[in-house]
Amino acid sequence: MSVPNNKFEGWAGMDKNSVKGELKFIEYEPKTFCDDDIELEVLYCGICASDLHTLSSGWGDMSKLYPQVVGHEVVGKVVRVGDAVKSGIKVGDIAGCGAQCDSCQECNQCEAHNENYCNNGHVGTYAGIFYRDTPAKGQKSYGGYANYWRGPSRFVVSIPDNVDPAEAAPMLCGGATVFTPLKQYGAGKKAKDVGIIGIGGLGHFALLFAKAMGANVTAITHSASKDEDAKKMGATTVIHTGDDTAKAIKGHERSLDLIVCSSNDPNMDLNTIVKLLRPHGTFCLVGAPESGDMKIHPFTLLMSNVHLSGSAIGSPDTIREMLKFVGDHDVHPWIKKYPLDKVNEAIVSQHKGEARYRYVLVNEKNGGKL
Amino acid sequence: MSVPNNKFEGWAGMDKNSVKGELKFIEYEPKTFCDDDIELEVLYCGICASDLHTLSSGWGDMSKLYPQVVGHEVVGKVVRVGDAVKSGIKVGDIAGCGAQCDSCQECNQCEAHNENYCNNGHVGTYAGIFYRDTPAKGQKSYGGYANYWRGPSRFVVSIPDNVDPAEAAPMLCGGATVFTPLKQYGAGKKAKDVGIIGIGGLGHFALLFAKAMGANVTAITHSASKDEDAKKMGATTVIHTGDDTAKAIKGHERSLDLIVCSSNDPNMDLNTIVKLLRPHGTFCLVGAPESGDMKIHPFTLLMSNVHLSGSAIGSPDTIREMLKFVGDHDVHPWIKKYPLDKVNEAIVSQHKGEARYRYVLVNEKNGGKL
Repeated sequence: MSVPNNKFEGWAGMDKNSVKGELKFIEYEPKTFCDDDIELEVLYCGICASDLHTLSSGWGDMSKLYPQVVGHEVVGKVVRVGDAVKSGIKVGDIAGCGAQCDSCQECNQCEAHNENYCNNGHVGTYAGIFYRDTPAKGQKSYGGYANYWRGPSRFVVSIPDNVDPAEAAPMLCGGATVFTPLKQYGAGKKAKDVGIIGIGGLGHFALLFAKAMGANVTAITHSASKDEDAKKMGATTVIHTGDDTAKAIKGHERSLDLIVCSSNDPNMDLNTIVKLLRPHGTFCLVGAPESGDMKIHPFTLLMSNVHLSGSAIGSPDTIREMLKFVGDHDVHPWIKKYPLDKVNEAIVSQHKGEARYRYVLVNEKNGGKL
Repeated sequence: MSVPNNKFEGWAGMDKNSVKGELKFIEYEPKTFCDDDIELEVLYCGICASDLHTLSSGWGDMSKLYPQVVGHEVVGKVVRVGDAVKSGIKVGDIAGCGAQCDSCQECNQCEAHNENYCNNGHVGTYAGIFYRDTPAKGQKSYGGYANYWRGPSRFVVSIPDNVDPAEAAPMLCGGATVFTPLKQYGAGKKAKDVGIIGIGGLGHFALLFAKAMGANVTAITHSASKDEDAKKMGATTVIHTGDDTAKAIKGHERSLDLIVCSSNDPNMDLNTIVKLLRPHGTFCLVGAPESGDMKIHPFTLLMSNVHLSGSAIGSPDTIREMLKFVGDHDVHPWIKKYPLDKVNEAIVSQHKGEARYRYVLVNEKNGGKL
């Protein structure tokens, strides 16, 4: 066991151009190690679309938070456990943290294990500011494109022995983001027929999970380029929206109980798309477009009792449930590994939309396996 | 028992100016009486906002359907029962029909007793065209501002002995429209804290029902003019949105599990209003504005897992459940009766927004009691 000092090293975005492959390797001071913290020697870190939205300030101005080490799909070896940690995780364990690394930990939502909807706001695993009354109050959070990561134990989950740690990494945000609504809305149970819009990083997880949950899965995608992949992931039907959504859905109206939408397309014709749903069905948004309001006509909602919702990441409990599910059902995401040193190459490729379907950075110095 | 002929008489809208109090008393030919029909001698008929939207063509051009006898909250004495009717309703019973008088009666939604979401479309109790393969196929439906009404028995419900028939009338559409989502989303059970937007005809039913279901009820209204009424109906909290919704909801964020929105305000600030909901909560629209798309920001949905839905009228089974609930819980709507002959006075008053809170037309000639 190495005892880490208070200087971490990682690949940081220095400004909004960093998304173009201009991350710099820097030394930085992490949050103060607190009694309830866990520290990881990073082995793997997934590249999430959120990383790119953040680096580019696409979701809002991040200028105050540069330099920023992103990465919130962190898996590593536990090297330090605070005295107040009660989760049972110990030094030497393989553990990880997803997109959220802290919350108030005391509101009714946190008490109900819905930390992702904490009434007092959640602290992102990077680009966040710790606000609980700890020695780290007011400090920045840094992510996993780094040699070490540390954060509150409540948000650190064990990686089960029967799940490959490299495959676990991209599930901690991307996987959990779609697993959460699939479970919530009963994919394979109450929701027998499930549609997944968008076959990208999130969509590919959704297809794999929905299939493993026993649902009949329909992939809904703009073009035909990923048809074969979608079918390999479990889709039995593929709908190409193309340029005429109304025409595309003809014959499929009211065929689905649940749609999980991972598409970021700001021009999606919601009024047409939700016609795919049976009455009482749910359209759940998990993609977060860099755009303005969505539009839906009141009669669309009134005349079929469909539900428009959204879901953000997953709570620690849901992440644990997902990892158990993944192990039990032998689910394997489609990942491509990059050495951490090639992070700039990886994010440029991701930014171009080339990922099929999820990139994982490997910290070979710490023992991560390419 | 009188055996009706094939000429009915009622108050008809002849064009879109009829909403200004220009209904004419006419004779008209109703749908052909079919084997599965029931015929009522009308005693009471509620005036619903839909009647006015239809008369004025506000929801779309109705020119082909004039002359139009509206009224879809019809209660009367059963005077004729078709040979194929199996519902047990018999001549002399008091029965009624709400906003829907037919559907395909064979799709999976109809089989599941969700006739209000029939896959093949529902036939309105007025301004509809019968489409099932019966002798009435292609004929118009006419409503209850009349001496008689007839229609398919599947949509005719008995009025329980412990419910005043005059009070039952406005519940058949207005009441059922809000009872349905209150039940669906568990008012008083899973949804302990319920908000009702708009204190009009629908809103007043929603307040009464939500209170009787055991919920903590918040009324949300534009101005203070109906505060006292709302409290008498069961609201413990009243929020005035005024001209600054964000200011109005301050201190009430995440205080509700369910919002039933009966407001037609096309300018409602949805992104702010739904902040009243706890995570996983539902905003259910029951009012149908004569306007375009509603707007909601993706992050509004994503960051709190709220649900935006709509609900249309009630199925026959739900209407029966409502009437039983009303009898069991001694719920009394706030109604004002008008003689049928004063229908023009009543609709003008309704159109001005003067109803406190629901008008019921009384057919004294048939024995209705003022």
